[in-house]
This record gives sequence, C-alpha cells and structure tokens, in this order.
Amino acid sequence: MEKGRLLGLGVGPGDPELITLKALRYLRGAPVVAYYVGKAKRGNALTSVKPHLRSDQIRLPLVYPVTGKKPEPPYDYEGVMRAFYDEAAEQVAEHLAAGRDVAALCEGDPFFYGSFMYLHDRLADRFETEVVPGVCSVVASASVLRTPLVYRDQRLQVLAGTLPEDRLAELLSGVEAAAIMKLGSNFEKVRRVIFNLGLQDRALYVERATMDGERILPLREIAPETVPYFSMVLIPGERWQG
Amino acid sequence: MEKGRLLGLGVGPGDPELITLKALRYLRGAPVVAYYVGKAKRGNALTSVKPHLRSDQIRLPLVYPVTGKKPEPPYDYEGVMRAFYDEAAEQVAEHLAAGRDVAALCEGDPFFYGSFMYLHDRLADRFETEVVPGVCSVVASASVLRTPLVYRDQRLQVLAGTLPEDRLAELLSGVEAAAIMKLGSNFEKVRRVIFNLGLQDRALYVERATMDGERILPLREIAPETVPYFSMVLIPGERWQG
Repeated sequence: MEKGRLLGLGVGPGDPELITLKALRYLRGAPVVAYYVGKAKRGNALTSVKPHLRSDQIRLPLVYPVTGKKPEPPYDYEGVMRAFYDEAAEQVAEHLAAGRDVAALCEGDPFFYGSFMYLHDRLADRFETEVVPGVCSVVASASVLRTPLVYRDQRLQVLAGTLPEDRLAELLSGVEAAAIMKLGSNFEKVRRVIFNLGLQDRALYVERATMDGERILPLREIAPETVPYFSMVLIPGERWQG
Repeated sequence: MEKGRLLGLGVGPGDPELITLKALRYLRGAPVVAYYVGKAKRGNALTSVKPHLRSDQIRLPLVYPVTGKKPEPPYDYEGVMRAFYDEAAEQVAEHLAAGRDVAALCEGDPFFYGSFMYLHDRLADRFETEVVPGVCSVVASASVLRTPLVYRDQRLQVLAGTLPEDRLAELLSGVEAAAIMKLGSNFEKVRRVIFNLGLQDRALYVERATMDGERILPLREIAPETVPYFSMVLIPGERWQG
C-alpha cells in the first residue's frame, strides 16, 4: 500500500480569504485535517479554514498540554512539550502509514515559527512531505497597519518578545526595521524597551491582524493584561524619499 | 463621480497558485491592472497572474527606466528613479481619478521591499487604498528548500545583498537565522562573507523559488554570473531538539 503524504499548509494570518489557491486545493483533497489547538479552544488555524472544510474529512486535533503562560520549574516544560510533539507526530504517522494524506494546518507560514516544524522534523524522513508557504503574520500586520515595512537595503529583524529585556534593548538599538512577535505577557517589557530607546513614535501595534477581533491601538493606550499572544509591534523602516 | 480604489495585491512568489483568494477576487474585479516591468521583459508579477486575467482588463505596464546593474555616477540613478515613480503614480492616478479601480500587482508582498510602496507613498493620501498581503519570497524559499526557517525565540534577519561586505560580515557574525535577498551581481561578495564566517554548511541557495526555472544548487557550485536578482540565501535557525 502506498503511504500518505504529509502536507504542511500555510493557511495565512486568519482571514479565510488569505489562504492560497494551492493550500486550498490540498486542503480540500486531503482525507485528514490535523491542527494544533489549546485546551478548550477552537484553534485559530481551524477557524480560519472552516468555510473551506468538507464534512467528510477526519479532523485530528493535536491538543497542547499547556495553554497560556509557560509554567515555571520544577515543571519540566521542555520535556512535556517534547513528549507532546512526539505523540502528535505518531498520531499523524498512523494516518500516513495507512495511506491517508494528512493536511496539517499552519497559522501563517509552516516554516516561520510554527509548531508544524516539529511534525516536519519527526516525519519528513519517513513520509513524502510537501509544504505550501503562506502569508505570515509580519506582512499581514503591515497591511492592516497600512504601513510599508522595509525599503531598499534596509535590514528587517524579526524578534520574539520572549527575549530578555537587555537583549531586546541591544537588538533594537539603532534599529532600521523590526517586527516583534509573541507579545502576550511580554508586552509590558517590550513597550518599556521601546520607550527607553525613544522608538515610541515609530512603533505600531496590532492584535489579531486580519482575524475576527482585530484591534489597532496606540502603544501608550494598551492595557498589558489584554494583550493576546497573536499581537505584534512593527517598527517600519524609514520611508525612502524616492 | 466616485474615485477608484488603489488595490495593492500581493500575488505571491511566482507560482500562479500561490496567490490568495482575496487577491484573486480583487484582481478579477479590477478594470485596470498595473505592474512594474523591466525594458523588453514580461514582468514576473504579470507572468504569475496571467492565468487569472480577464481579456477585457486594461493593462498598465510601468516600465523601469533602468534594468539590471545600477549605473554609476555621474548618471543620476536616484533622480531618474524618483522621476519614474512620480510618473508611474500619475499614470495610476489618472485611472483612479476617472473612477476606475487599479489593481497594482506586487511580487511577493506589497509592503516587503516592493516598488508598490512608492505608489502607496504618493497616492494613499489622495485615494482610498487597500493592501492585500502576499506570500513573500523568504518563506517561499524555505518551502522549496524544505527547511524550517526559525524556531521559538530565534532572531531572523532579512538582509539585502547590496550591503557593503564589512557590514554584511558584521551582521552575519554569530547569526541565528537570516535570509539574504537581492543577490544578482552581489552574489560573489555574499558567498565570500559566508565562507569567511564559516557558515557555508548552514547556508542554502535557491533562485526563482516557485517560478518557472527554479534552481537549487550547493553554494560552492554556483557560477556568479548566472545568479539572477530573484535568488536568495537562507541560513536557517538551528533545529530545536524538541
């Protein structure tokens, strides 16, 4: 029997219309649809493709063992996550071994900070794998903020808000253009760095770009406890007066 | 009379199937399709949407005054380009003022190093403007190279190969993850920096990712004079052993 294919599908930033024709074709053709989801959540990736799903497709939710704030030691977060990704890969592998293609839904792009990479790293040697790139959150945020992001030979840095404060300050000092992702509980620290470096007039904030509940606010007006994980600060490159 | 809307459409990296449903809908609905193109060239953006165009759409090519290598002074390159973008914007503005929506085709994403930004900067204050994000070349390259690009809190730097050699060396020293764009005649310099920093075993090369004529080669085997502008070196982040 022929094995199934692992299809990593970038479904885009949230708006169901921001999926590509190719990802949609693969999605509609796959008998199994796998997606990561937080406990008691619906899953953003699933939500954004819902209008496109067929009713006869097998749905395979891969439920994160931890949702929200990362637990502190002695909780073995890394070990728990590793075991979870192992188990998720085996669930997917069962379908592949049985000859069923599995469409793995990826918010944004599959290879850009996504949990799909852990499936890929475990399965791409054993099963035929194809990855369809997607619209990532960085450019989606620029579009809803209506700001060009990088001009000409400007350097763009993509940073995680989880980095330590002094490291963020070092990397953003003299920045040309940057996108700071993974805010959530890191927001207050990131905002402090931006104000300390005098970047507050260049920095733009958006949460849930292109999704339901999208919100754009001035940096100084944001209540840190309201900031979701799917939020972003952009520091666009200076406009080329060309 | 109502004015037309400026629609900046990310058409993706080249494969006609990597356009989003939204960009396709806007494209099909627009009476005018504008696109940048080199002299005596067809234009990559136009090529990648060709299967989707209607025969009754007005095509507005914006023909670059310079194609290929940037001329040296005393040729006033910056001045010539500025005048060109002014003129291109006025051509688009004529249609908008006459009440016709203009779909401006953008390779990759409109706000990510694209010439659309110069239309946007000149017209967004005068006309209703909407930007549809697209799949950018960085993630498209990762997908065809079959490599995860950035894990967890790794930093991604997007750099232009046009930067001076010592600046590139400084930025790539100790790099976590990087994408180096705009290679073309800058390729030999970029490769030298990569070898000097001992990054050659991590660096991956692709040209024309997802387009006709896509080519993947080991870095040391590339003949510099064959490297097109649409090529990229990726230095993926180290795999998280999760």
